[in-house]
Amino acid sequence: MKVYEFNGLPNPARVRIALAEKGLTEKVEFISVDVPNGEHRQPEFLAKNPLGAVPVLELEDGTTISECTAITEYLDHITGEITLTGRTPKERATIHMMQRRAESGLLDAGTTYFHHATPGLGPDLETYQCAEWGQHQRQKAVSGMHYFNEVLAKQDYLAGEQFSMADITAFAGLAFADFAKIDIPVECGHLQAWRERVSQRPSISG
Amino acid sequence: MKVYEFNGLPNPARVRIALAEKGLTEKVEFISVDVPNGEHRQPEFLAKNPLGAVPVLELEDGTTISECTAITEYLDHITGEITLTGRTPKERATIHMMQRRAESGLLDAGTTYFHHATPGLGPDLETYQCAEWGQHQRQKAVSGMHYFNEVLAKQDYLAGEQFSMADITAFAGLAFADFAKIDIPVECGHLQAWRERVSQRPSISG
Repeated sequence: MKVYEFNGLPNPARVRIALAEKGLTEKVEFISVDVPNGEHRQPEFLAKNPLGAVPVLELEDGTTISECTAITEYLDHITGEITLTGRTPKERATIHMMQRRAESGLLDAGTTYFHHATPGLGPDLETYQCAEWGQHQRQKAVSGMHYFNEVLAKQDYLAGEQFSMADITAFAGLAFADFAKIDIPVECGHLQAWRERVSQRPSISG
Repeated sequence: MKVYEFNGLPNPARVRIALAEKGLTEKVEFISVDVPNGEHRQPEFLAKNPLGAVPVLELEDGTTISECTAITEYLDHITGEITLTGRTPKERATIHMMQRRAESGLLDAGTTYFHHATPGLGPDLETYQCAEWGQHQRQKAVSGMHYFNEVLAKQDYLAGEQFSMADITAFAGLAFADFAKIDIPVECGHLQAWRERVSQRPSISG
């Protein structure tokens, strides 16, 4: 398998964590795509992902998979035991629900703020910006932090008592929020404690 | 099981189609939430989905599941055979990837246009609008139609040769595009042919 990525971006980080959780890191060839210089918008890369985004997982038969949820589903199902996406129908549903909430309410909100209401990746790459929408998404990210703080007041992880794909998404969302200078509100102690706990997993600290 | 919904909205339609595909329609109690009058923003409903959106699936034990992908994962896994979300790791990955593309590039793009660049559900419910972003999302929906047309030039369904959750999302996306007056470009004949084929499934025509 190959993973096309760029080090430091939040979505490639999600796949790196999923690979480490599944013990698959050594089985992957990582290929760096020069995002700061627009390599992800060139025809060669667009043939792998028409949306021009990293990461992309390329299978041995040439099939290319983008979208972190899709890549994580693949990785979780090629190993012996399902650990990230849920074993029962109810677990699967809860994890997918919380994963989507973490994506739209935290990670995507933060990246949209960055790309639209800050200089983002610079004028050559940020060819369309809508600053008002970007600021609105910043507020959404902060609301998301409050929401997840409430969730984590009652349970250890986003989708219940076990670490899952949803936690990976939210963890990457907070890392990007740091980068974009969207502070976690001081009253979100449960979220901070969860983050500290997750950061100690070998897939992240190792 | 109970499904909280409002007839005519695109996301409840996705769950209705999934239920019919799985032969589960008769096993569900449908409860109408008065979205035009803001019932989805009242505390009683927000306790079921803090994002204030329909549909919500409520299980016998009181667990509430929102997000159509999560609900579809549940429905597809409680019956004997997986038919909507993929049987193999590669199928699962491809379906989730295309589902997400249909959601962000067609359905969500169209609904964002409607809520932000048109009167939407009216001034009482549309408490924040960003018309410029809405217009941008309209363009994204049209680009999405072109993209899916290209995909469907090479295969019968969005994720390959079999109907899946991704087709349900895109079908609901086109239905909403009709409602929001975002026309399918005339050159998108493969998309039109796919839509006609999908509309004849008993889960939709029945």
